Amino acid sequence: MVQYTDVGDVPAVEVQRLRAVYEPLAESVRQLIDATIRTEVDADTVAAVKAEIDAATARLRSKQCDGPFGVRYTTGGESMAWGNPVIGIRNPMAPPLTIQRDEDGLVFTDFHLGAAYEGPPGHVHGGVSALVLDHVLGEVASNRATPRFTGSITLRYLRPTRLGPLHAEARITRTDGIKAYAAGHLADDQGITVEAEGVFIQPKWARG
Amino acid sequence: MVQYTDVGDVPAVEVQRLRAVYEPLAESVRQLIDATIRTEVDADTVAAVKAEIDAATARLRSKQCDGPFGVRYTTGGESMAWGNPVIGIRNPMAPPLTIQRDEDGLVFTDFHLGAAYEGPPGHVHGGVSALVLDHVLGEVASNRATPRFTGSITLRYLRPTRLGPLHAEARITRTDGIKAYAAGHLADDQGITVEAEGVFIQPKWARG
Repeated sequence: MVQYTDVGDVPAVEVQRLRAVYEPLAESVRQLIDATIRTEVDADTVAAVKAEIDAATARLRSKQCDGPFGVRYTTGGESMAWGNPVIGIRNPMAPPLTIQRDEDGLVFTDFHLGAAYEGPPGHVHGGVSALVLDHVLGEVASNRATPRFTGSITLRYLRPTRLGPLHAEARITRTDGIKAYAAGHLADDQGITVEAEGVFIQPKWARG
Repeated sequence: MVQYTDVGDVPAVEVQRLRAVYEPLAESVRQLIDATIRTEVDADTVAAVKAEIDAATARLRSKQCDGPFGVRYTTGGESMAWGNPVIGIRNPMAPPLTIQRDEDGLVFTDFHLGAAYEGPPGHVHGGVSALVLDHVLGEVASNRATPRFTGSITLRYLRPTRLGPLHAEARITRTDGIKAYAAGHLADDQGITVEAEGVFIQPKWARG
């Protein structure tokens, strides 16, 4: 079962405080990931850095939650998907994407992908494009009252996507009861690179 | 253009030495990612750990390659996709997958996904399933003589995939000149969760 975590009546100011504590740490680890892939320092330096990282990990683990972060929400309706690998502000593998919505229901996001997301040399891994588009289509297909999970999704790759500044967007094309149909695309600085369409379905446990 | 890097006549023993230097560092950073998401230590400890990580990153960056890692190959034919976000032994965001092939042409992999890959609470992000399956289908559709990139891929989600031990596999269903059709699935400890099929196309620059 998919179980969300009700953290109770946590005031918005406390959510902001937690965010200010943990978000900069994830951003630092994001930089470390990039440096780990690209470094050319010698074996002795690598070994010394590794020992420092192991010590840092042990300090963080001295008090940690059991298992994954989950998705936590407050009585006030604030949702904290902070461990999410696409949007999670506490997840160093997330770029992370900031999802925006315009008044016409378009969901869009502008972000940057570097060395950690590389498949073909200098280009975004095709599966990373799928990861981003699955998330963005899922965002437009869902709302607070109606979560919807991917039923199926099809991705068409028009050409390789260059690493660097990217844009993704999606809109709902049709809804049909528990289902929402969404379509969108990923673009690099030269235009659209990947198109996506999918069906997103309200899970049984979330149906009134 | 997609440009691979010929590193020349590097002996296999030197490739092994480089692997032994950098692989353990990436594994340590992988643990740090997990700890960064799950830690509940106080603000002062987080700030101290963040400073240590920033110092470690600076040491690694004191000598690093320009831009992303690329895909490097030796005269002997050894391919080093070490920065790859699915299989890269130097990429901390990669699980990393170890790709295996049986004598009948099946490509398969057994791996573990934890907190960093979570979408719905306790379950794998649907886009991460897409990332893994895109890669595994791409592996079966390609070989050293004939690289093929994703043309299109469709994923069908049968039910949520639990975080933990997972299995993915793929096989070629048909080839047609520059195209290979591949199909496969992802499974958790309760059976198949996501099915995939795709068309993989040899890029123009790789056609004899």
